[in-house]
Amino acid sequence: MAPVPHGHVTLVQVARWAGVSAQTVSNAVNNPERVAPATRERILAAVEELGYEPNLSARALRNRSSSLIAFKTRPARTDKASLLMDEFLYALNAAAAEAGYHLILCHAEDGSANEIKAYRDLLKKTSVDAFVLAETHRNDDRVSALRSWGVPFASFGRSWDGDEATSWVDVDGRAGTRAATEHVAAQGHRRIGHIGWPAESEIGSERREGWLEGCRGRELETDLQAAVADTLEAGRQAAHRMLDSSRPATALVCASDTLALGVLRALHERGLRPGADVAVTGFDDSPTAALVSPGLTTLHQPIDVVGRQLIQSIDNLLAGDPRDPQHVLLEPELIVRGSSLPGPPRQ
Amino acid sequence: MAPVPHGHVTLVQVARWAGVSAQTVSNAVNNPERVAPATRERILAAVEELGYEPNLSARALRNRSSSLIAFKTRPARTDKASLLMDEFLYALNAAAAEAGYHLILCHAEDGSANEIKAYRDLLKKTSVDAFVLAETHRNDDRVSALRSWGVPFASFGRSWDGDEATSWVDVDGRAGTRAATEHVAAQGHRRIGHIGWPAESEIGSERREGWLEGCRGRELETDLQAAVADTLEAGRQAAHRMLDSSRPATALVCASDTLALGVLRALHERGLRPGADVAVTGFDDSPTAALVSPGLTTLHQPIDVVGRQLIQSIDNLLAGDPRDPQHVLLEPELIVRGSSLPGPPRQ
Repeated sequence: MAPVPHGHVTLVQVARWAGVSAQTVSNAVNNPERVAPATRERILAAVEELGYEPNLSARALRNRSSSLIAFKTRPARTDKASLLMDEFLYALNAAAAEAGYHLILCHAEDGSANEIKAYRDLLKKTSVDAFVLAETHRNDDRVSALRSWGVPFASFGRSWDGDEATSWVDVDGRAGTRAATEHVAAQGHRRIGHIGWPAESEIGSERREGWLEGCRGRELETDLQAAVADTLEAGRQAAHRMLDSSRPATALVCASDTLALGVLRALHERGLRPGADVAVTGFDDSPTAALVSPGLTTLHQPIDVVGRQLIQSIDNLLAGDPRDPQHVLLEPELIVRGSSLPGPPRQ
Repeated sequence: MAPVPHGHVTLVQVARWAGVSAQTVSNAVNNPERVAPATRERILAAVEELGYEPNLSARALRNRSSSLIAFKTRPARTDKASLLMDEFLYALNAAAAEAGYHLILCHAEDGSANEIKAYRDLLKKTSVDAFVLAETHRNDDRVSALRSWGVPFASFGRSWDGDEATSWVDVDGRAGTRAATEHVAAQGHRRIGHIGWPAESEIGSERREGWLEGCRGRELETDLQAAVADTLEAGRQAAHRMLDSSRPATALVCASDTLALGVLRALHERGLRPGADVAVTGFDDSPTAALVSPGLTTLHQPIDVVGRQLIQSIDNLLAGDPRDPQHVLLEPELIVRGSSLPGPPRQ
């Protein structure tokens, strides 16, 4: 058991004392019906023992605040298969609701200048407690803008500049792509190509690195690679090129489901069977990946955990939690479907 | 030109006088840069002529309001192909932003009791101007709840009870399914099956009616029909049954893309080619429909128009517009892709 803290007692100290998460203490105070009676007892004992005063705590501060967390959604329909940001929006909304917040949506055309303007307009108009950023990149103007305004935020996507001050949650694309590469290598493939994004994409570079690591670990050649736009058509054309090569690919590891679906289209055009003739993997476990026939092997991002972690980080920030910013890198899960498995022999 | 109105002049009267929409007048007042100079001149002339006082108008009321419109999003990831409600959320958010509103999201588990509770909690906590409902059904408790609280709302989905008091926008599923049925009949198909939802679904019944009308118009039999849950697996099994029939279907018109993708899986399992061997159509133009090979013929809902119309309805309601509630039924567009077209002959 931790020593009795001195000075102003925080919710986090109560949590440590009771051996539960800060969220559970928060629930015990705000939504007691959500907490098991025994746990509630233990938390109440800790509250008494430590002299915790909820009125001086984050809860009181929060009651003077809006409980609104702002998030910018994508501007319009895209033809991307991924839709990962849609899933993220639902996960974030569910996590926010659970912690007593509401999401307020922000609308902006592409480009950080537009996004920053939308943030500023929102702040002028409505009281917002915090922002969640997504799709971070190097020299991210949004970070400096929010920081200069003194607005709390956390991001889905790491600080690519190595900025330690921002709380972020991210998914390890390098580890995921390495796992996909090792999976197809384990099926016996030796000519494994990679279809990814141009070098300016930090996420794309991470995924490419994972493929390189997977190939090098098995001493496979890495000459079959393409850096293209994230469209079905670009994936289709890159696949045709790698299959027209004098020593063609027998497996294609892609940086996205969109690209992988383009590869499936190319195979369809060539009369080749995904899995049986050419193994294909994507990234993001889009809804389409489960719906195509055969299903698309891909990497699933633990998006519910991402949402909960970000809300927890924001909750800590708003509670004035003295804890350091959180940096959480999660592993994606390889979902194996028919597109990377040898099928029944051709009739 | 309309007669000069007497008494309190509304924004709508200014709009009629100037021969423009209420939205354009609103823009001229709030975002003049969005309105062409000549139109602005005409509106200003109307404002002067009628003695319109923006300070007494909806704009002033709105400035005392939150400009927040609440919308409940789906609770979690589903394996549905449709994702129509995701597209709707973006369309609604874009339309809201354009009219100077922000969306605030509401989270509730399935079931109208949960949804109503979430609405009430939100209203207690935050000042919300209006709600947008979606996925309306008969005896919709949400409508009576919002009405009893005196909260303005409009719905994506008609009043199935024939309630004339609610403003709604909907898409004509009957006309859409009839168009799909006529399209496959025009390709020469005579055994056209329908895979739809159980009778308690109002939307499903409408779509089934469209198929019936399409068949009857061409004097085709309507014995091949299935009413199943909206899952890939249910679509797959229903397709197998209709293809195992002594007089099998050569075309399957489905109530959703999810069901149609189940049909594609069944065809894949039977070694049949979509389009060339069996024509398949879906409904909703999900992202997956464009991404599978061959592409899935489907009905596209004009979701951007739905979003804009709903925001316009809410804007009218909040402006105290004396206009009757709006009831807008839009036609979906048939998107023809490979799944319903004869392909190249089998090698």
